[in-house]
Amino acid sequence: MAKKEHKVRLLGTWRSPFVYRVRLALKLKGIEYEYIEVDLKNKSPLLLESNPVHKLVPVLIHGNNPVSESSVILEFIDETWPENPLMPQDPHGMAVARFWSKFIDEKCMAPMKTVLLTDGEEQEKAMTEIKEALKTLEGGLKGRFFGGEVIGFVDIAASSLSIWSEVLGEIVGTKFIDSEKLPLLRSWFEEFTSIDLLKESFPPYNKLIASYKARREDHLAAKFFPN
Amino acid sequence: MAKKEHKVRLLGTWRSPFVYRVRLALKLKGIEYEYIEVDLKNKSPLLLESNPVHKLVPVLIHGNNPVSESSVILEFIDETWPENPLMPQDPHGMAVARFWSKFIDEKCMAPMKTVLLTDGEEQEKAMTEIKEALKTLEGGLKGRFFGGEVIGFVDIAASSLSIWSEVLGEIVGTKFIDSEKLPLLRSWFEEFTSIDLLKESFPPYNKLIASYKARREDHLAAKFFPN
Repeated sequence: MAKKEHKVRLLGTWRSPFVYRVRLALKLKGIEYEYIEVDLKNKSPLLLESNPVHKLVPVLIHGNNPVSESSVILEFIDETWPENPLMPQDPHGMAVARFWSKFIDEKCMAPMKTVLLTDGEEQEKAMTEIKEALKTLEGGLKGRFFGGEVIGFVDIAASSLSIWSEVLGEIVGTKFIDSEKLPLLRSWFEEFTSIDLLKESFPPYNKLIASYKARREDHLAAKFFPN
Repeated sequence: MAKKEHKVRLLGTWRSPFVYRVRLALKLKGIEYEYIEVDLKNKSPLLLESNPVHKLVPVLIHGNNPVSESSVILEFIDETWPENPLMPQDPHGMAVARFWSKFIDEKCMAPMKTVLLTDGEEQEKAMTEIKEALKTLEGGLKGRFFGGEVIGFVDIAASSLSIWSEVLGEIVGTKFIDSEKLPLLRSWFEEFTSIDLLKESFPPYNKLIASYKARREDHLAAKFFPN
């Protein structure tokens, strides 16, 4: 069976910034797929079988082959459907793209979770970390986008920051991608979030606010009143 | 200038398991390079210029192009010198290899650092995490090696675990790759560490013990007597 005939399924949750990366890449490539919303509080046999190690989303299933971890899925998509490449085509360009994608995961996304789920000193520390990391990330911009004049691999990785950093900022009372402190990143944000193809696929802003606010409150309550 | 004529330099420290990965990949590919030992307490201009974001090793410099982060460097090496590939040659095989390499970094190497630098409950927790992760990692073995009958990308990522987990275990009084609990991983370890090409390139065991013991003691002392 030719690879194009393989069925493509995506296991995800509507609000996840990591799932969004995969949806965006599939959209940019024009790949048809079946989207399956997963309940992480009541994990389906399909999720447990296809990502037995982490039991998390996103999972892309190509034919019968599951792939998990959003950065790994993005590379898999780019290699399986090479038209409209997301990655630069030379080894050094690829290395630079992988470097920034890893940087976004480790230095921005990881502390964003801490900011959401903590208070006081721990939260302050993570906030400062994110702001410093975003300043560093500006150095990776190559013009309008991280991919230069077109959206590339790093832009898709950074899509997890875009409206999610706004949502998080609103919940905890700060501005992450601030136009004065981060003019280049802010202008990337404005360009990126104004593209119709992307705009229409973002989860609704107010629904994100409500959902992450509830997650934060549940988590903090459980910390003070375990069970 | 053809890529083969580019000078290859590697900035590293002798004891780093991440630098070892790169040395091993270069050795398996038969690539000549200049090794430059770096003093992380007194960082050279070359290090600061070539890895301004993290200021850490390993950094591979190919011609004038620096690449950092060991997993990114391994992919760069494999793409620049495609002979004797480290990666599987199909997109799904590559995704599986990247998945395990990321798993090793996040679930094994990160808590190894915690075990080295902490005590008590925090150390116990990280020890348990590592042992559970190693059990999961056994699932990635495909015969003698993670690469099947030959050493591949995941074996090189896991080289950071090999003698370093023995060294750490000796310092903190436990056995990580235990032959009863992890028979498959232990047999991988025995096979892997008995290959002459690898054996001769490992840093000396006793020197590693002394060096990491000193790091642990300095770190714990600084915690109790800051400055």
